Amino acid sequence: MADIQEIKNTQDSLEEMLTDLVQSKQYAKIKELLADLNPSDVASICNSLDEPSLPIVFRLLPKETAADAFVEMESDIQEILIKAFSDTELKQVVNELYVDDAVDIVEEMPANVVRRILAQATPEKRSAINELLKYPENSAGSIMTTEYVSLREDWTVGECISFIRRSGVNKETIYICYVTSNRRLMGWISVKDLLLAPSDSEKISSLMDDNVISVNALTDREEVAKMLSFYHFLAMPVTDSENRLVGIVTFDDAMDVIEEETTEDIAIMSGTTPSDKAYLKSTPFEFFLHRIPWLAIMMISATFTGIIISGFESALAANVLLTAFIPMLMDTGGNSGSQSSVTVIRAISLGEIEFKDLPKVILKEFLTAIMCGLTLGAVCMLKMFLIDRLLLGNPDLTLSMMLVVSASMCLTILVAKILGGTLPLIAKKLGADPAVMSSPLITTCVDAISLIVYFTIASNVLF
Amino acid sequence: MADIQEIKNTQDSLEEMLTDLVQSKQYAKIKELLADLNPSDVASICNSLDEPSLPIVFRLLPKETAADAFVEMESDIQEILIKAFSDTELKQVVNELYVDDAVDIVEEMPANVVRRILAQATPEKRSAINELLKYPENSAGSIMTTEYVSLREDWTVGECISFIRRSGVNKETIYICYVTSNRRLMGWISVKDLLLAPSDSEKISSLMDDNVISVNALTDREEVAKMLSFYHFLAMPVTDSENRLVGIVTFDDAMDVIEEETTEDIAIMSGTTPSDKAYLKSTPFEFFLHRIPWLAIMMISATFTGIIISGFESALAANVLLTAFIPMLMDTGGNSGSQSSVTVIRAISLGEIEFKDLPKVILKEFLTAIMCGLTLGAVCMLKMFLIDRLLLGNPDLTLSMMLVVSASMCLTILVAKILGGTLPLIAKKLGADPAVMSSPLITTCVDAISLIVYFTIASNVLF
Repeated sequence: MADIQEIKNTQDSLEEMLTDLVQSKQYAKIKELLADLNPSDVASICNSLDEPSLPIVFRLLPKETAADAFVEMESDIQEILIKAFSDTELKQVVNELYVDDAVDIVEEMPANVVRRILAQATPEKRSAINELLKYPENSAGSIMTTEYVSLREDWTVGECISFIRRSGVNKETIYICYVTSNRRLMGWISVKDLLLAPSDSEKISSLMDDNVISVNALTDREEVAKMLSFYHFLAMPVTDSENRLVGIVTFDDAMDVIEEETTEDIAIMSGTTPSDKAYLKSTPFEFFLHRIPWLAIMMISATFTGIIISGFESALAANVLLTAFIPMLMDTGGNSGSQSSVTVIRAISLGEIEFKDLPKVILKEFLTAIMCGLTLGAVCMLKMFLIDRLLLGNPDLTLSMMLVVSASMCLTILVAKILGGTLPLIAKKLGADPAVMSSPLITTCVDAISLIVYFTIASNVLF
Repeated sequence: MADIQEIKNTQDSLEEMLTDLVQSKQYAKIKELLADLNPSDVASICNSLDEPSLPIVFRLLPKETAADAFVEMESDIQEILIKAFSDTELKQVVNELYVDDAVDIVEEMPANVVRRILAQATPEKRSAINELLKYPENSAGSIMTTEYVSLREDWTVGECISFIRRSGVNKETIYICYVTSNRRLMGWISVKDLLLAPSDSEKISSLMDDNVISVNALTDREEVAKMLSFYHFLAMPVTDSENRLVGIVTFDDAMDVIEEETTEDIAIMSGTTPSDKAYLKSTPFEFFLHRIPWLAIMMISATFTGIIISGFESALAANVLLTAFIPMLMDTGGNSGSQSSVTVIRAISLGEIEFKDLPKVILKEFLTAIMCGLTLGAVCMLKMFLIDRLLLGNPDLTLSMMLVVSASMCLTILVAKILGGTLPLIAKKLGADPAVMSSPLITTCVDAISLIVYFTIASNVLF
């Protein structure tokens, strides 16, 4: 296979084939078709199957694939399946799930479905699920699993390996093992270190890394994901306030968190309330609800720019040509500001800059703005002379007007870049999401400022 | 430790301590301080150390940490260190590196440094590096490593485990092993499966998964990263055109690729040429070069909006109040459009939608636009009546003017959302980056359209 697009196309054609086969009741063929598929592919296909085919296809899946695929499906599809399951089927699936996946599913389901799920879980699984459900949303606790390998300090390499071989089957990862004493986290060791250890009789206390980096169960899940990525860990141990190991977050869950959080940031940057639903699964009404608040806020705040223009109404009436340059000034200001704000927002999110770097950011943005402002001011002069005056033959466009426009452009860029660079850092410092200080908001501020600059210069120079 | 911020603060204070200790030549203390640090932390600290301290601190690092930390450092810091290294030191570091990391470093260095690096590499390492350097930039081949565990089909579980124990030390990951026959990729098996296998004498051909998902060495690295994340793989095998295994891409490299590509997308969306330099490492002149092209293009394209306004100059002269609503219309149009385009761009990048979904996207955006348009049109009427007419006492604002503004608003939103939703998909279809069709470009288009709509309606209704 070559790329995601090809995978999608294969999935699409498989989905069509499956729908046809279900209709013609060729169950043996379906079974054969499903036998070799990866669980993630099965999940993608199920996500677009029709409701009646879903349980039929699911029941024909190989046992090993079924639970893994179920976890990857979208929650509306999971709900359809659970409702179609007999109690025995549900029991089988639920008890195959890792605890963290079970919790993710439970969190999305209506109360009656949750009751059914918990009723079919084994007592241990049920209590583990209930334990994890107590952690606040978006905390490390809410995304961790309790199924990790825990070793004892006084064990030898050989003892550890045979312990893993006995107990590893239900662990989400066996590759990173944690050494605990009275549940307190003492160190960690990788299966690579165990396998490559010179002798099976060596004590793991001498091999393990006792400088463990861990997070508290209440840490924000985005922080956990970023730390895991920073340290290139396969899994991050999660402890309670007394340094007792309570779970681990694995790299695949961290990748999902980073993807979700980035999607959220990008949505906020474009003035949209984030949603965790896929594009094609969202209804227009949901889009409306996610988009209308910022649109309305920004429309009303544009009143200020209107008031500014009204205030200069007499100047405009005397020289209507001034109006023609308003869009160019506003757009250039908005674009300059959003370049800076988006760059700074991303740098904050990657942990490259923080509030104490504010002076450096201001200096950098100031110098960049000076260069951009002078260049664009000059380009603007040239453009007005060549296009507006010579090409379009606009004799009203005097040299002093051109100077007014270019100077306003230059000043607007300066203000826009400094606002764009500083507002996200200030927002972060005040505990707000820096992504809010992005294009839409910056544009609104810069619009007002650019108009004031423009009309003030114009009134002083031209009248 | 609790979060990234705390880690950064600890790193900052460690960096200050180290600088002081270097100055007072307390090398034993430095060694002690460095002994327990994670390589990623060491790299972060070295990234902000001053040039003279760098080699001193590096030489005091524990051997196990030195190479791992070196890989994580920024390339200017790596260059300083390499230049300070003796040949023996360089040899030691280079031959500790995994091939893919060595290639990453070589790609960033000036030619004379590259020659020194290659001269100190062992012949095998040198030829492996040269092999990987042949792959095109941004291909799977350019980010893969050739150090993977390759097993033979006819081996037993026990043979495999002892092979891994003998040869695993130099492999980037041992957890996923690939089964090959004449270098052709036949299947894969995890160390978990090997360890949990019921018997050591079982043949791996019966345990391995022979339905291998792999990518071609020329596949785009972003596709590889997305596939790895989609399938939750620890590593993705890379094959040549004859299905011979040539390397693997590990999850941590995939995470880095996703992060870089997202940063690139976000930059493009804000009209900035992407850069792979960190914010604080970029000079204002570099920012200028990355930002000026789009600013200039968009400024010049704003000429059209200017021409449109000039074309309606007489209408404006007769009713200057019309001008006051231009910013509100333009901003709302721009914001509506960028909400849609950014949502669609992200959905494309997550593989949720593709060109064939265009009709669905148009329908969804159309319905959303109708709802947003009607709501904002109504809010706008109310706002004009309450704020502009009653509060600001503007008697010139007639009911028909309010209707003109609201109707223009409604139509502008419709056009903006449909353009915003469709242009990224069309760009993708034409082989361009969908992210280019984002706010700045959409804003410029929508500005022109909103003005034409506004003035056309106004001329017909008011004059």
